[in-house]
Amino acid sequence: MAKKYVYLFSEGNANQRELLGGKGANLAEMTNLGLPVPEGFTICTDACNSYYENNESLTEGILGEIDNALESLEKQTGKKLGGDNPLFVSVRSGARVSMPGMMDTILNLGLNDKTVEILAKQSNNSRFAYDSYRRFVQMFSNVAMGMNLRDFESVIDKLKESKGYTKDSDLTCEDLKAILSKFKEIYKSNKGEDFPQDTKVQLLEAVKAVFRTWNNPRAIVYRRMNDIPASWGTAVNVQRMVFGNLGETSGTGVAFSRNPSTGENVLYGEYLMNAQGEDIVAGVRTPNPISQLKEQLPDVYKQYTDIVSKLEKHYKDMQDMEFTIENGKLYMLQTRNGKRTAAAAIKIAVDLVNEGLNTEKEALMKIEVRTLDTLLHNQLDSKVLKNITPIATGLPASPGAGVGKIAFTSERAVEMAKNGDKVILVRLETSAEDIEGMHNSQGIITCRGGMTSHAAVVARGLGTPCVAGVSNITINDENTQVEMSGKIYKEGDVVSIDGATGNVYDGAVPTTSPELNEDFKTVMGWAKKYKKLGVRANADTPKDAKTAFDFGAEGIGLVRTEHMFFDADRILPMRKMIVSTTEEDRVKALNELLPMQREDFVKLFVAMNGNPVTIRYLDPPLHEFLPKTEKDEIDLAAATNVSLDKLREIMNSLHEFNPMMGHRGCRLSITYPEIAKMQTRAVIEAAIKVCKDGINVKPEIMIPLVCSKNELEYVKNIVDETAKEVMKEQNYSLDYLVGTMIEIPRAAVLADSIAEAAEFFSFGTNDLTQMTYGFSRDDAGKFLNEYYDKKVFEQDPFVRVDEDGVGALVKMGVEKGRKTKPNLKTGICGEHGGEPSSIEFFHKAGLSYVSCSPYRIPIAILASAQAAIKND
Amino acid sequence: MAKKYVYLFSEGNANQRELLGGKGANLAEMTNLGLPVPEGFTICTDACNSYYENNESLTEGILGEIDNALESLEKQTGKKLGGDNPLFVSVRSGARVSMPGMMDTILNLGLNDKTVEILAKQSNNSRFAYDSYRRFVQMFSNVAMGMNLRDFESVIDKLKESKGYTKDSDLTCEDLKAILSKFKEIYKSNKGEDFPQDTKVQLLEAVKAVFRTWNNPRAIVYRRMNDIPASWGTAVNVQRMVFGNLGETSGTGVAFSRNPSTGENVLYGEYLMNAQGEDIVAGVRTPNPISQLKEQLPDVYKQYTDIVSKLEKHYKDMQDMEFTIENGKLYMLQTRNGKRTAAAAIKIAVDLVNEGLNTEKEALMKIEVRTLDTLLHNQLDSKVLKNITPIATGLPASPGAGVGKIAFTSERAVEMAKNGDKVILVRLETSAEDIEGMHNSQGIITCRGGMTSHAAVVARGLGTPCVAGVSNITINDENTQVEMSGKIYKEGDVVSIDGATGNVYDGAVPTTSPELNEDFKTVMGWAKKYKKLGVRANADTPKDAKTAFDFGAEGIGLVRTEHMFFDADRILPMRKMIVSTTEEDRVKALNELLPMQREDFVKLFVAMNGNPVTIRYLDPPLHEFLPKTEKDEIDLAAATNVSLDKLREIMNSLHEFNPMMGHRGCRLSITYPEIAKMQTRAVIEAAIKVCKDGINVKPEIMIPLVCSKNELEYVKNIVDETAKEVMKEQNYSLDYLVGTMIEIPRAAVLADSIAEAAEFFSFGTNDLTQMTYGFSRDDAGKFLNEYYDKKVFEQDPFVRVDEDGVGALVKMGVEKGRKTKPNLKTGICGEHGGEPSSIEFFHKAGLSYVSCSPYRIPIAILASAQAAIKND
Repeated sequence: MAKKYVYLFSEGNANQRELLGGKGANLAEMTNLGLPVPEGFTICTDACNSYYENNESLTEGILGEIDNALESLEKQTGKKLGGDNPLFVSVRSGARVSMPGMMDTILNLGLNDKTVEILAKQSNNSRFAYDSYRRFVQMFSNVAMGMNLRDFESVIDKLKESKGYTKDSDLTCEDLKAILSKFKEIYKSNKGEDFPQDTKVQLLEAVKAVFRTWNNPRAIVYRRMNDIPASWGTAVNVQRMVFGNLGETSGTGVAFSRNPSTGENVLYGEYLMNAQGEDIVAGVRTPNPISQLKEQLPDVYKQYTDIVSKLEKHYKDMQDMEFTIENGKLYMLQTRNGKRTAAAAIKIAVDLVNEGLNTEKEALMKIEVRTLDTLLHNQLDSKVLKNITPIATGLPASPGAGVGKIAFTSERAVEMAKNGDKVILVRLETSAEDIEGMHNSQGIITCRGGMTSHAAVVARGLGTPCVAGVSNITINDENTQVEMSGKIYKEGDVVSIDGATGNVYDGAVPTTSPELNEDFKTVMGWAKKYKKLGVRANADTPKDAKTAFDFGAEGIGLVRTEHMFFDADRILPMRKMIVSTTEEDRVKALNELLPMQREDFVKLFVAMNGNPVTIRYLDPPLHEFLPKTEKDEIDLAAATNVSLDKLREIMNSLHEFNPMMGHRGCRLSITYPEIAKMQTRAVIEAAIKVCKDGINVKPEIMIPLVCSKNELEYVKNIVDETAKEVMKEQNYSLDYLVGTMIEIPRAAVLADSIAEAAEFFSFGTNDLTQMTYGFSRDDAGKFLNEYYDKKVFEQDPFVRVDEDGVGALVKMGVEKGRKTKPNLKTGICGEHGGEPSSIEFFHKAGLSYVSCSPYRIPIAILASAQAAIKND
Repeated sequence: MAKKYVYLFSEGNANQRELLGGKGANLAEMTNLGLPVPEGFTICTDACNSYYENNESLTEGILGEIDNALESLEKQTGKKLGGDNPLFVSVRSGARVSMPGMMDTILNLGLNDKTVEILAKQSNNSRFAYDSYRRFVQMFSNVAMGMNLRDFESVIDKLKESKGYTKDSDLTCEDLKAILSKFKEIYKSNKGEDFPQDTKVQLLEAVKAVFRTWNNPRAIVYRRMNDIPASWGTAVNVQRMVFGNLGETSGTGVAFSRNPSTGENVLYGEYLMNAQGEDIVAGVRTPNPISQLKEQLPDVYKQYTDIVSKLEKHYKDMQDMEFTIENGKLYMLQTRNGKRTAAAAIKIAVDLVNEGLNTEKEALMKIEVRTLDTLLHNQLDSKVLKNITPIATGLPASPGAGVGKIAFTSERAVEMAKNGDKVILVRLETSAEDIEGMHNSQGIITCRGGMTSHAAVVARGLGTPCVAGVSNITINDENTQVEMSGKIYKEGDVVSIDGATGNVYDGAVPTTSPELNEDFKTVMGWAKKYKKLGVRANADTPKDAKTAFDFGAEGIGLVRTEHMFFDADRILPMRKMIVSTTEEDRVKALNELLPMQREDFVKLFVAMNGNPVTIRYLDPPLHEFLPKTEKDEIDLAAATNVSLDKLREIMNSLHEFNPMMGHRGCRLSITYPEIAKMQTRAVIEAAIKVCKDGINVKPEIMIPLVCSKNELEYVKNIVDETAKEVMKEQNYSLDYLVGTMIEIPRAAVLADSIAEAAEFFSFGTNDLTQMTYGFSRDDAGKFLNEYYDKKVFEQDPFVRVDEDGVGALVKMGVEKGRKTKPNLKTGICGEHGGEPSSIEFFHKAGLSYVSCSPYRIPIAILASAQAAIKND
């Protein structure tokens, strides 16, 4: 059967969103519900793909279907495009999901020098007819022909100026005719031919223009930001025009069935009489609140509220609707599930369930997971933001609002914070040694690095707002000033950042606090009931653990033990350990670290109160911990009793060309077994202590960066022997698990063999993404932007898990691992563990749990629930 | 059926090598051929594995089987271990493959205070009996009980000194008794108990001792060097003793059926009368050439030569045989296929075919591929090497002998070479900028880096000897001297290196030249006939291409275009290109490079005379090309008309944290399409020129580091458009292919999708190994040695392809690629392409060809033939 490319509204329904686009599907649905919808047809998304496949042209088949649909439309309306009883149509795009403001629309199509006169006569309103015509010429020239809108607007402006008019409505019919004539001249001089009088040419050019808007730059950016594949394409809706600008009993409006900011159950919207839709958008005249319509046109208002109620019940969701009134008659032009803030989403979900309109599952599916972030962090006041411009923009690396004084070094940030200042830490990039400064800051700005750069990962873990990779600002070499939008900012100058948008603002922007109300708790309760995936947190400190626990985490999936070593009082013994040249010296330094590490674990175990805690052994290349300043070098030389020269020689010998693929992870425990011994001792001693205090702890020890069973076995032997030793010393028997991270491609490929030695797997999708792509996350930023611009990549694989490649390895790892051990516990503790679409993938891949930063726990819980509801 | 662990010689045969070990299988075979072999039995390799699995003990089952076998042996010989007609046995190890000198042997077992007297009586030779006893005590104490041999030897030395003896044979029977008594004292003081008189205890301890030798340090090292898995285990042979030291009609000897150095078809060996095997090894007495036996014991000699001839015919190969004569009666103690030099292997192969003993295929299988290297390079004179000690030892990174004066920088190497000196370049490590110096050197020594470090890869490509990663030498910071074995070497001091062993020698060691004689060509001819894999070369210069072609390469599988840019006259425009901040500047610099690159390609195409040439586009991170000295920086600043500060800022911005995973490969062509344009222009213009001159060229353009189909398509579009442009300009139509490297794990996982855009695949197993393991080849050396020492790894995955992990991805890539394109040409151009066991793997994986450095072409051809013969 040949594919069908064009559907009359009466032929479609709401489920055909993929084919007809959201707008088209809903127009069809409303038509079939018997609502007053102007007749029309939809040219479907497949036609858009066909258009691009055929070198940006419409096939004969599609042209034929358009002809047939147009003929049907003409029959339905009793009018004819370009005929004596002329049909006028709007041509609008409509993709599978709404992409507000991203694509264009052409209204009043069908007007030409002949039909304008008929319209004038029929409406008995020449001014209206010519105003409609000039609008059409303007839109067609701009949207379909790519001409500059400014050229057209300046014609109107000049005429208004010359006549002393202040408003568009001052323009007379004659003025409009003059304008129209100028418009046609502009068209001809641009295009080399006259404005098309052939209405069929108008229609086809308009359709193609809408298809082209699918690939305009802002649509591409929007798609990338919203994970929309280019292959979806857009549909085109061709619909009989109803005119809201026919006079004082005509108008147009938009309304939400409930308040999209708060979720309150009242009709919320606005309208404008004697206007077309674009007039509302343009903001020249101030629209009236929808409630006034009740007084102005009570019958229409009544009809409208009935329809709203019918639509809400039909769609079981809050609706966002456009309507037009033509000579006192109401027409519905669009309905869709309304966008809403996170707060509104939560309230509406709870209300819809209470009203019996939704089941809990249905209600959960209607909450846009991504928006939850805004509920969990301070926000810059959106009312204030409307009126100011950012001074710089980077990547939205960690959400929330941060306001404070600039500090350029970690040391200064700590000092300023001690003095009671709120601090924004501004760095070229951060490294492990900045941790303390980051801890003490309200926000972080970096010039380099991407969404999984050190700054981004750490900031998300801390719940601290971060704007990363702000490439168009410059910090001077001495770290004393930064230039943003031409202004110099020095230490102590105040800036505000919005980590959810990546914007940086001058001065202190007021903030609003998050509130987790009862509705939020209700929703989370439902989500926990329906999700299948466990949700754990990546947490390195008791404070993190507490936050995560309060947000609903069921355990800790990742303790990065190295993060415990950056505190000022710990870094020195850590450094001593690293520069040791004998096992004896190394053991001595490790013995200094042991009590600190043990105490950390005790606190974590207590904070998690018997829930599982997965502890990853030392992972990063050791040279990350080395002193960066001469003072620190001198201190270390003194502490280790070697000359500065000798120390530098040792430090030099630790240099690596590609540290990400160097001496790190389990490789450290294999070359220096004493590290694994110390860490095991700390874990087991801490666990026994806490057990003795009555909390039942079963630590999960996780060996990182394993690529072969032998590596894991080697380290596991050290762990088991040391644990045995400690248990004997303490005369206490303790259960614990030893598992591994699967974060190297070879580990996924050989997961069946590795599972023989592992009691659990945790996929480290950050490293796995790096190795699978051969991308260093610290360096890829330099070329990935070009990849997006050139449409080589559509997604940042560090943000959303790459299902085809990295995901295939995760699946392979799960399947092979479970072939060896059918009940193998498998988790994921990379950054993807808190990203909704990745969570859905992990659900489908059959993982046991995801682990993410504490502030993403609610998101992970809701995303897991949605994944379970959607896929089971 | 229960496993059988012990076999009488009469129960086995030569095919049971895996079970019985090489020695045991051949003893069984000779027994069944009716040759005079002393009776015995073999405890098989499975028993060795069982021994280790059971915590280093023998199971009841195995003990029972040993009892039974011993009983049978006693029946066969009519003697009894420890009995009145006592049986004496030797206990020798025998692994699946010969591991000469790696494991130990115990002779004369069964002697105790009682049986020594019986032996004295039976042999009528008390001195002989006590000498045998003291030898046994000595061997048993050392091998089975781990006591220090020196303690025993010094007893003999002291006694000889006190009596003024000069030879062992001066010792009287009484002396030997005194020595024996001292030996027993040493045993008791070490062990706390008397030397065991129970002959059964002696036997079982000896068996276990042999099993333990399998894991002694030198055996482990030997296995690693020779790719022998630990899991093979060793067998133990227990055999009736025949005594070569019974008097003047007794003796022992070793002989090869043909000359193992030259291959000449004459019996070659030596013997010693009145001696046991160890006397020959000890070198105290000088053995006689085997030819003298003809005069001394003509009947025995005749019998022996008959056996030799029988064995050669039976085994169809040159034999290496041990024998003992006891009172004028000949016994065969071992036969095996003899080790031989590469030259001998070639001659013997050709002779065996001419003699009708072997088919061509059989003859090919007998040549040890790895040894061919010695035929292709100069060698240090082995006679001289016997008498000198290396001053340093590193990794055998590129074979051959190099003798010359030390230079510490590339510049000095070039200058010294210009003055006619032969140069050995000594560097901490090499980088791209050392290429010219390496080109001008006879040999290269580096302190850092492994078998696939920059120095190693480039040296193998050049055929220049290289010793890499000599970690125990130190170069001073000013690069003016190096210390080796305590001696300071300065520029101009002469050293010699052997790149096949990794040894460095003081002064000029004489060298021998390689000869590729007619026999070699005959063998290569056979190999080409039977191999299935294509064999191509990695070659960057016309000279490389010529070498490869002469060695039999069927094309070039990899031209690394970046290697063409390091010459002194090219590096400047290359650098200008890299530091360009505008596309315009970059294009200008590229235009300078274009004619040079085109000319290179012309020469390569001409050198390969119509055979395929695969050209890889620019691959390494750009900052590899940047100036390293201030002078070069100043030159570049001048050439690019920017300030030195600005230049440094630009250079700084090119810094990468992990360059191996950074901005390189196809990522360069995507961010800077002008590079791919220039390279395409150079390829196509060169190909058209050469075609017009009558050589039919079809270039194969290879895009590196691809991880997604989109990347490949993006670059392929640039290539296709540029090629079209050039063909139009030149009015010439040319066929060419565009393919990709599969060297990133994701590319293997998504090979089906990538194959849609690729006309061929070439697996880059160097990078694939790095990414699959998460090992940087430049850094892994720091920990891989520990991995070997701790038996975590047995192989260097950069040397021999990791079949389980990397190999699984290669197979996946081939299968998925061919699912999309069934006839897809698939090659491999990593370093593994010249490694014999990897080549066998690639053959089995169904690849179309391997590509390796020119000097490994004959090795690849022979290895491919062997793989085909073995597997088809």
